[in-house]
Amino acid sequence: MKKEKYVYFFAKDQTDGSAEDKELLGGKGANLAEMTSIGLPVPPGFTITTRACQQFYEAGKKWPATLEAEMDESIKELEKVTGKTFGYGENPLLLSVRSGAVVSMPGMMDTVLNLGLNEKTLESLIAKTNNPRLGWDAYRRLIQMFGDVVMNVPHQKFEDALDRLKAKAGVEFDTDLTVEDLQELVKEYLAIYKEGTNEDFPTDAKEQLVKSIDAVFNSWNNPRAEKYREINDIKGLIGTAVNVQTMVFGNMGDTSGTGVCFTRDPSTGEKEFYGEFLMNAQGEDIVAGIRTPEPIIGLSKILPVQYKELLEAERKLEYHYKDMQDLEFTIEEEKLYILQTRSGKRTATAAVKMAIDMYAEELIDKETAVMRVSPADLDQLLHPMFDPEAEKEAKVVGRGLPASPGGASGKVVFDADTAERWAADGKTVILCRIETSPEDIGGMHRAKGILTTCGGMTSHAAVVARGMGKCCVAGAGDIIIDYSKKELKGSGVTLKEGDWISLNGTSGTVYSGKIDMIEPEMSSDFGELMKLADEFRRLGVRANSDTPHDTAVAIDFGAEGIGLTRTEHMFFEGDRIVSFRKLIFVADTVKTLRQEIEDSIDEEEIALLEKQLEQPLKQYEEALSELLPLQRQDFEGIFEELKGMPCTIRLLDPPLHEFLPQDERGQKEMADVMGVEVSLIKEKVSLLHEMNPMLGHRGCRLGLTYPEISAMQVRAIMEAAVNVKKKGIEVSPEIMIPLVGHVEELRIARAQAEEVIEEVFKDNNIEKGSIPYQIGTLLEVPRAAVTADLIANEADFFSFGTNDLTQMGCGFSRDDAGKFLEDYVRMDIYEKDPFQVLDQDGVGRLVEIACELGRKTKKDIALGICGEHGGEPSSVEFCHKVGLDYVSCSPFRIPIARLAAAQAAIKNK
Amino acid sequence: MKKEKYVYFFAKDQTDGSAEDKELLGGKGANLAEMTSIGLPVPPGFTITTRACQQFYEAGKKWPATLEAEMDESIKELEKVTGKTFGYGENPLLLSVRSGAVVSMPGMMDTVLNLGLNEKTLESLIAKTNNPRLGWDAYRRLIQMFGDVVMNVPHQKFEDALDRLKAKAGVEFDTDLTVEDLQELVKEYLAIYKEGTNEDFPTDAKEQLVKSIDAVFNSWNNPRAEKYREINDIKGLIGTAVNVQTMVFGNMGDTSGTGVCFTRDPSTGEKEFYGEFLMNAQGEDIVAGIRTPEPIIGLSKILPVQYKELLEAERKLEYHYKDMQDLEFTIEEEKLYILQTRSGKRTATAAVKMAIDMYAEELIDKETAVMRVSPADLDQLLHPMFDPEAEKEAKVVGRGLPASPGGASGKVVFDADTAERWAADGKTVILCRIETSPEDIGGMHRAKGILTTCGGMTSHAAVVARGMGKCCVAGAGDIIIDYSKKELKGSGVTLKEGDWISLNGTSGTVYSGKIDMIEPEMSSDFGELMKLADEFRRLGVRANSDTPHDTAVAIDFGAEGIGLTRTEHMFFEGDRIVSFRKLIFVADTVKTLRQEIEDSIDEEEIALLEKQLEQPLKQYEEALSELLPLQRQDFEGIFEELKGMPCTIRLLDPPLHEFLPQDERGQKEMADVMGVEVSLIKEKVSLLHEMNPMLGHRGCRLGLTYPEISAMQVRAIMEAAVNVKKKGIEVSPEIMIPLVGHVEELRIARAQAEEVIEEVFKDNNIEKGSIPYQIGTLLEVPRAAVTADLIANEADFFSFGTNDLTQMGCGFSRDDAGKFLEDYVRMDIYEKDPFQVLDQDGVGRLVEIACELGRKTKKDIALGICGEHGGEPSSVEFCHKVGLDYVSCSPFRIPIARLAAAQAAIKNK
Repeated sequence: MKKEKYVYFFAKDQTDGSAEDKELLGGKGANLAEMTSIGLPVPPGFTITTRACQQFYEAGKKWPATLEAEMDESIKELEKVTGKTFGYGENPLLLSVRSGAVVSMPGMMDTVLNLGLNEKTLESLIAKTNNPRLGWDAYRRLIQMFGDVVMNVPHQKFEDALDRLKAKAGVEFDTDLTVEDLQELVKEYLAIYKEGTNEDFPTDAKEQLVKSIDAVFNSWNNPRAEKYREINDIKGLIGTAVNVQTMVFGNMGDTSGTGVCFTRDPSTGEKEFYGEFLMNAQGEDIVAGIRTPEPIIGLSKILPVQYKELLEAERKLEYHYKDMQDLEFTIEEEKLYILQTRSGKRTATAAVKMAIDMYAEELIDKETAVMRVSPADLDQLLHPMFDPEAEKEAKVVGRGLPASPGGASGKVVFDADTAERWAADGKTVILCRIETSPEDIGGMHRAKGILTTCGGMTSHAAVVARGMGKCCVAGAGDIIIDYSKKELKGSGVTLKEGDWISLNGTSGTVYSGKIDMIEPEMSSDFGELMKLADEFRRLGVRANSDTPHDTAVAIDFGAEGIGLTRTEHMFFEGDRIVSFRKLIFVADTVKTLRQEIEDSIDEEEIALLEKQLEQPLKQYEEALSELLPLQRQDFEGIFEELKGMPCTIRLLDPPLHEFLPQDERGQKEMADVMGVEVSLIKEKVSLLHEMNPMLGHRGCRLGLTYPEISAMQVRAIMEAAVNVKKKGIEVSPEIMIPLVGHVEELRIARAQAEEVIEEVFKDNNIEKGSIPYQIGTLLEVPRAAVTADLIANEADFFSFGTNDLTQMGCGFSRDDAGKFLEDYVRMDIYEKDPFQVLDQDGVGRLVEIACELGRKTKKDIALGICGEHGGEPSSVEFCHKVGLDYVSCSPFRIPIARLAAAQAAIKNK
Repeated sequence: MKKEKYVYFFAKDQTDGSAEDKELLGGKGANLAEMTSIGLPVPPGFTITTRACQQFYEAGKKWPATLEAEMDESIKELEKVTGKTFGYGENPLLLSVRSGAVVSMPGMMDTVLNLGLNEKTLESLIAKTNNPRLGWDAYRRLIQMFGDVVMNVPHQKFEDALDRLKAKAGVEFDTDLTVEDLQELVKEYLAIYKEGTNEDFPTDAKEQLVKSIDAVFNSWNNPRAEKYREINDIKGLIGTAVNVQTMVFGNMGDTSGTGVCFTRDPSTGEKEFYGEFLMNAQGEDIVAGIRTPEPIIGLSKILPVQYKELLEAERKLEYHYKDMQDLEFTIEEEKLYILQTRSGKRTATAAVKMAIDMYAEELIDKETAVMRVSPADLDQLLHPMFDPEAEKEAKVVGRGLPASPGGASGKVVFDADTAERWAADGKTVILCRIETSPEDIGGMHRAKGILTTCGGMTSHAAVVARGMGKCCVAGAGDIIIDYSKKELKGSGVTLKEGDWISLNGTSGTVYSGKIDMIEPEMSSDFGELMKLADEFRRLGVRANSDTPHDTAVAIDFGAEGIGLTRTEHMFFEGDRIVSFRKLIFVADTVKTLRQEIEDSIDEEEIALLEKQLEQPLKQYEEALSELLPLQRQDFEGIFEELKGMPCTIRLLDPPLHEFLPQDERGQKEMADVMGVEVSLIKEKVSLLHEMNPMLGHRGCRLGLTYPEISAMQVRAIMEAAVNVKKKGIEVSPEIMIPLVGHVEELRIARAQAEEVIEEVFKDNNIEKGSIPYQIGTLLEVPRAAVTADLIANEADFFSFGTNDLTQMGCGFSRDDAGKFLEDYVRMDIYEKDPFQVLDQDGVGRLVEIACELGRKTKKDIALGICGEHGGEPSSVEFCHKVGLDYVSCSPFRIPIARLAAAQAAIKNK
């Protein structure tokens, strides 16, 4: 067996690794190797591999057998290329040690500098540089860093000693301390070190180095690093690499300096060299913010030659890496060193602009441009967001579901009426409710954002807010709202009506107070990017929309049709709810009496029952005929916007009790409007109550037991189609039957719908073929997935309702899963909340099975998805892979879906 | 194309059909042909096929084109073999017309006799028989039957005329009427006929025949017949056959007679010729019950030769059909005719005895014996049943689910305390509750039967009742119980406390009043049958049992182990609920604090949290240690009964809120016992409330979030195993993790369990192999079914929980499905309630997928079913077909499952 190599050396003309070795050398190490290879001035050094770290843990925190020998070899090599010696001699070699995993990870040990210093080498350093201040400062820093990060001596003790000394010397900045001051400080630091460790500070350079490397290995699994990985969802890494590099000093005097810069502006994306520098300073001084750095252009005046070298280096780097670079440099006595480079973090605006610019510059190709922007980041361009810096400072009150993206600050109000009133007075308000109901629509419209403490990603609040493109945090269960006291409480904070609150609907976080905003802007580059994306994607992108307005918004965002119109939302508006409640009130009576008539063989009884049926039947038909024109009008508006693009309309889905008032006051109102005793309303509410409404009398079950409701809806759809068609506008309605589990359900529902359609055509003298329509199903019941071959016989299309398919497939109630799903993600049972990110292994398997079976029966059956997952990038990629025809999502997620679809096509070519 | 044959002729030496042609000729027709073929004296005739009836409907109630010609041909043939002429002449041919579908169907038209009579043929008949009374009686019967059943003249009008005449003549019986009386009656009948039809009674014989055949065809789809098919679940038949047969007269004088008999006793199964007869009578006279028939043995004295012939015929028939026959005969002037034979209906007791006897007699083989008894009928042998005659008379109050079989009458009581008190006083009571809860156990024990108006087949009441083998009707939603008034109402009947009520738990029907009972008896034949069955079945049969007592009962019934022990039922008994509630009360606090400690990196905060944790943790551990010995003791009892047979134990499954009192009083009690404010209890109850508890925090989700509860249960199981093993009794525990949807859930739960098991072994110095155990999962989540290949990696067995798999697979809540499932069955969407009979096409497909995937990973993975379907015959057959290893059901269904499993093996050889 070939011996494993743990140490990769880098120096001019003798570099072991390259950018390809990121897995093994970490991001930082791979880039150091790569930069060295392409001839940039990098201080030489070596990288210990991530495999070494992994084996360190596997062996119970012991180094792999051959690591030390390899390290010693590399140090010898370093001594050779630098002409210096490590831990002794007149020209001492000083080293830095840094951790560096595959992805950057703030929680780990960062840096120990100046390793190799001791009393002897310090003398040599001072003699060689003729700069005692530099030497003593370097030494005190080594003791402090080594003590703190390697030996766990409390950081504060060193800081206190420094502060005491500064006070005594009467100076403000470290840089004002004299050599003598620093000598005294070193003495004190050595004492602190001994007190904290019961050991003397190690004078042996190799011991310093070995312990520092140990500390990096150990920091891989410290709680902060684990926490960081958990929060940032970093999984599957084996360990960290360790970078050991020759020290260079930016603080050797006026011809030395250090800086951080970007090859393009990371916030706007403009192509201009951007960054800042400090003369006579170390890198950490920039971060510490004690002195204010200058814009990078200033360097061109102080050290024009080095500035030109730097410009050449940044151009070379960007050209080499084909991406905007974030680089660190140090100039040591007029000699430029590049210490680090990486792809720079950027705002979404900058990401889009850079992708389009670099494509125009022919630096990258079309595919790379499309891949360069993270779809999820587009939210920043579509919604107002908090200023990230301001958000970091804000006090968290609680967390809920990221129900509708964007940020919003406003004054707390607890009811819709107040929201409307205050908004009319020019106040900015956030509507905070336990949950919302149709009566709250007005207030929701006027509020800047919506917070609920109950309900999931598809609760009323969430769905309505997304449709409006309005920020919403839903189901923030750790916040308690008390309507009677007009206050909300969370994390020890109490907010009263009128207090400021801020919601981040992208992350689901709730803050107290007001947070500065960044308003969205949609540049022409954005349009360009979408156009490029559309060249690659195979998946169609449709929108979930219930109104003409939302449909128009969706089309603006590039929707190619509507994948889901929820007809029940139309019942919630204004007076419609009255008609619909009237209908609910008699529907069951009508059904029961009809059944009794059907079952009876006694003529007299039949006559009696028919008599009893008259009154409720009249009310039933009245309510239906009140609703018909309203629904028809809704559909007309949507069809007119769509101009012939397809429109999938779901027939009534939620259980009837969702439409009845659950509270005393509402029940009283309903009784008054209907002219009946309130006790009758209560009785109906309790009759319709369900133990598990999710698995209750809803979806197509309603249409089958109350066929007149479906018939009214189908009639409204088709009459609207006929009317719009008569205006010369094409229409393409698709009727979707929800919650089908058994092919017979769809067969009956389809037959009933077709009967109505034929009637409408006949009444309007329309030939059957001239208005094309489809009838299909919302595939959301596991039974339907595994019998999709049968169901396909009756379906023109399947649209996967992955919300409900997740609920039934996994056996989670969206409303209740909060109690354990958080633990589940924590325990790695599910990688992500399956309501936010499609559970590809499980729910996805059901989708795959259904696609396969469906196509077996009907080769060209149309397949789509209209669950919340339709706008989530990894889920969109899954949809691409299983060969769906389209995804459908809320209007404001359309651009995300378009980009994700394009990236999926590119990745899976 | 060959012309289709619609008419099958039968007469000595020229019979077209046979018993094989049942589909085409109906049961009766096929048997007439068969009997004729084997040389029995059957009056000749012909059968019109079921296909003719089907085509009659398809053609809009028109005869197939060639039918009439074929019929005419057959009449000619009949005239030839009988030497008589139809509708004219001196020796007139009289015919009967009877319907006859594949299965006997009381709703259809029955019989028209004496077709061919008119004034002329009547004269000939009288002349030939020299029996004017017979002639006029035959004629008046023809007019009445034809008028009533063919022409729809109200039956009552003829009856009234007859009554008037009898009153006028001063006689009691029809047979006392003189010829002159009958002549007057005929005149009146003809007038009634004309009044009712506006037509004269048809004198043309062929017209009489054609109209009668039409009437049979039409009766196939009359409401009564449709209703009968619906109730008896008769599906897929194409139509009825029509049997046209030469009349014979049992009322031709003292050497004539008629009778009905069985080749063996249909109620006991004894091998003795059994039946009754009437001299000088027609078959209908026996049915009418005006004269009392004599036991068949009497015939041997009156007509010994004919009796001997009859004996030979019945022996021949039984031998020929290899089954007990129910036959009708008529003797016309010393000439014996066999009119009909069919396999006789029998009680379950008789069915078992006959099967065993016939096998012993070598009349049938072993397989036939096993196939001869319907598994569902075994309930009659295991539970007290209502006398079917008495039940028919009883007043129905409502219907619910057949939750636990058998019949029971008792006095209505509305609470468990009263049930116990009254039972102690020697009263027989039925406990009637909206739903039952653990507190009711005592009362349930003392009641004869249990009625609930809410809850499904697996509600508390249903499960507990089945375990006790006690009759239960659950979820009778149309009955309203009012606790405050102490009354229940249904179908217009009000029953007060103390009134008699009767429950049929086999059908789910509730009656008012007391109904006579038939007590069950388990004969040695029953044991024999079970033994025969066991020779054939491949499926193992286990029981669902939660107590040592139920386990003993199950083993008596032949259980080969326990397939499901629900550990939570143990928590409901007596004081245990107190400990368990204590546990629930602090579990969440403990969990939350622990999590906060884990998440914190601040030493001080950690210390503070640890301090806060102390008290609840103490209570938590106290509660666990109170429960441990109780659970251990339960398991010891069960293991001791099982003597090494396997025992699958499900860890805690229901959501915690099910254990908390939902009512004010109970909450107050709990607060008192725990020494806390009642408001705290209420807060906990509301905190644990779930929107969809079915899809909530239950099953393995509990064990994963509260691992100590699982650990306690696993410890109790394994310590019990160790203790029992120490007594020298073998044990074979199988730990079942419920509600697994993701392999990671099982992996973690398994690892946790194995850790505890190792501890127990270590503590008891037991070597790992010496107590074999298995860990597997209750496969009941659709996601688990489609990822069973992954789950099998962590499972020693899958036990299909088809109750929940149906709920989640179909998206039905058991508790709510009542609202639409009845309609669904009515609409033929599902053939049967999928909670009672496994939905093989859908839920069954999930089971098949899981079996296939599971075996792909682990060839020998053990597969069973422990849902309610495990004791339902058609579902058992499905389990056999997909190759499960065993079924598990409630103890009293074990014999049913054994027989069903044997029949499945025989059918699917």
